[in-house]
Amino acid sequence: MSNNAAFLAPVQDDIQAVEALMRSQADGHHPDLRTALDLLLSSGGKRIRPSLTLLIGKMLGASKDRLIILAAAIELLHTATLVHDDLIDGSLLRRGMATLNSQWSPGATVLTGDFLFARAANLAADTNSLPVMKVFSKTLSVIVNGEISQLFASRCKVNREDYFKRIYAKTASLFETSAYTAAMISPVDEDTVDTMRRYGYQIGMAFQIVDDILDFTGEQSTVGKPVGSDLRQGLVTLPALHYIEKHSDDTDAQALINGQCLNDTQITRLVDAIRCSNAIQISQDEACNFVQLALNGIHNQPNNQLRQALEDLAEYIVQRKL
Amino acid sequence: MSNNAAFLAPVQDDIQAVEALMRSQADGHHPDLRTALDLLLSSGGKRIRPSLTLLIGKMLGASKDRLIILAAAIELLHTATLVHDDLIDGSLLRRGMATLNSQWSPGATVLTGDFLFARAANLAADTNSLPVMKVFSKTLSVIVNGEISQLFASRCKVNREDYFKRIYAKTASLFETSAYTAAMISPVDEDTVDTMRRYGYQIGMAFQIVDDILDFTGEQSTVGKPVGSDLRQGLVTLPALHYIEKHSDDTDAQALINGQCLNDTQITRLVDAIRCSNAIQISQDEACNFVQLALNGIHNQPNNQLRQALEDLAEYIVQRKL
Repeated sequence: MSNNAAFLAPVQDDIQAVEALMRSQADGHHPDLRTALDLLLSSGGKRIRPSLTLLIGKMLGASKDRLIILAAAIELLHTATLVHDDLIDGSLLRRGMATLNSQWSPGATVLTGDFLFARAANLAADTNSLPVMKVFSKTLSVIVNGEISQLFASRCKVNREDYFKRIYAKTASLFETSAYTAAMISPVDEDTVDTMRRYGYQIGMAFQIVDDILDFTGEQSTVGKPVGSDLRQGLVTLPALHYIEKHSDDTDAQALINGQCLNDTQITRLVDAIRCSNAIQISQDEACNFVQLALNGIHNQPNNQLRQALEDLAEYIVQRKL
Repeated sequence: MSNNAAFLAPVQDDIQAVEALMRSQADGHHPDLRTALDLLLSSGGKRIRPSLTLLIGKMLGASKDRLIILAAAIELLHTATLVHDDLIDGSLLRRGMATLNSQWSPGATVLTGDFLFARAANLAADTNSLPVMKVFSKTLSVIVNGEISQLFASRCKVNREDYFKRIYAKTASLFETSAYTAAMISPVDEDTVDTMRRYGYQIGMAFQIVDDILDFTGEQSTVGKPVGSDLRQGLVTLPALHYIEKHSDDTDAQALINGQCLNDTQITRLVDAIRCSNAIQISQDEACNFVQLALNGIHNQPNNQLRQALEDLAEYIVQRKL
């Protein structure tokens, strides 16, 4: 997604302010933190979470200054988790750019992530809303608990319930918080706040399901990693779960669901089988269901440019191609 | 220091409640997080920071429930920073117990630290005080910025100003916050809040100076690391600075202050020279000056058991032996 995606136009200027606020978090600190922050922010990314915060907050009449602070807090929290994730996974590239851990020592990378957590918490406190602060710190617990669960989970063993829990922790929780906290600082009733929370949750779930589909359907040259890399790492996602459910005759698939590990040849065959099966379409339908719920939820909001942008954003999420 | 130190008696029961609250932070999360938290908390430690929070808050009339939450937040933040520090330093033991990183993978250790940061922020938010939350997140920025500065500093190069900045970031900032935030949630005027903040700062500075002295004067068998281990790691602390200032004829000392590195034989000789010099006493005098300032600051508080405990605590800090 380009940052110029039409439906994000209403918040393009605000996103510039969010970027500037994020960059300013290194002010008065060690110069190498500025270098790190510049590196991390220049690698771009979609800024979809802060855009979500800004779109919802603007639609509901929140103060622009507070929204920018909140959006920067959320994107910085997201960035901090990515810094530690890439270190733990030993990833050398993210979005085609060198990761921090590929250039810095593990110690410096851990501390830079910690610094970003601290500055994210600082910004969240600057929204001057205790309820926002509470949701914010709870979300960090959920994200980290999810990562720990994944790290400690027996390899290759997962069911549908585990999968949905995992993608909630990994992705949907922060989408939910991006939308929820924007509504919390807006002059609206509790029902509207809850509607927005659910909208964030639903498009977050859809977002991760589509990511997991693209891991099977994307071209290696575009994705930058081998097709089926999740499964190769022992991560059973929704397309694999649907395939396994429908193919009780596929002994490799059954071995996988029972927690056994497969060799490279078995994995490659299974990835191809999943790619060619209707498990992809069924998974896509599930993502579409989440988006439909999100659209239904905001249907009663005043019909203006911002609601339209939220509708377009939701639809874009399921139509993404890499 | 034993947890039964007489001057901490007024808060012994509350410390039990703080421990229970810290342990409960793993509830509802991955079972391995409970294991980690139990391991980290069973290794004990002095609980000096939460005791400081409790003593000051009780003296000033803060709500006991909020104080316990605040004290748990502070100790958990401290624990989180230790988890990442030990990982970065590759330390295998702390307080005679195996560190988390000596038993778990680097990834699991990073994430456990992150989880503790998240729960500490959660607890800080549960004090329902935005100003406390702001001080809390700012303190984390200061601590992490200090660690990064130390990591990136040219080896062996330091002056007095750098030293005081470093020990503020490393130790005094959290002592300051322990005292400051306790006063912030108490029914007292701003002058008293600032007095308590300064008391925390001053005993924190004294605490780290004494730690740095003990690195030279402690017995290896008790300290659990070689005498002069700071200097061996390239860390120039107050006793070394005083020695270097007075010994312009010691070429090793002068080489050190100019950022050159010394070999093992040179370091061992220098450590012995510092141990036998009056640099130890001059450093101790500086720690005593900080404690005297702390005592003067609280002199006007109503003279009761809790003020007495704070006086005893301050004096204990400079009399510590390992």
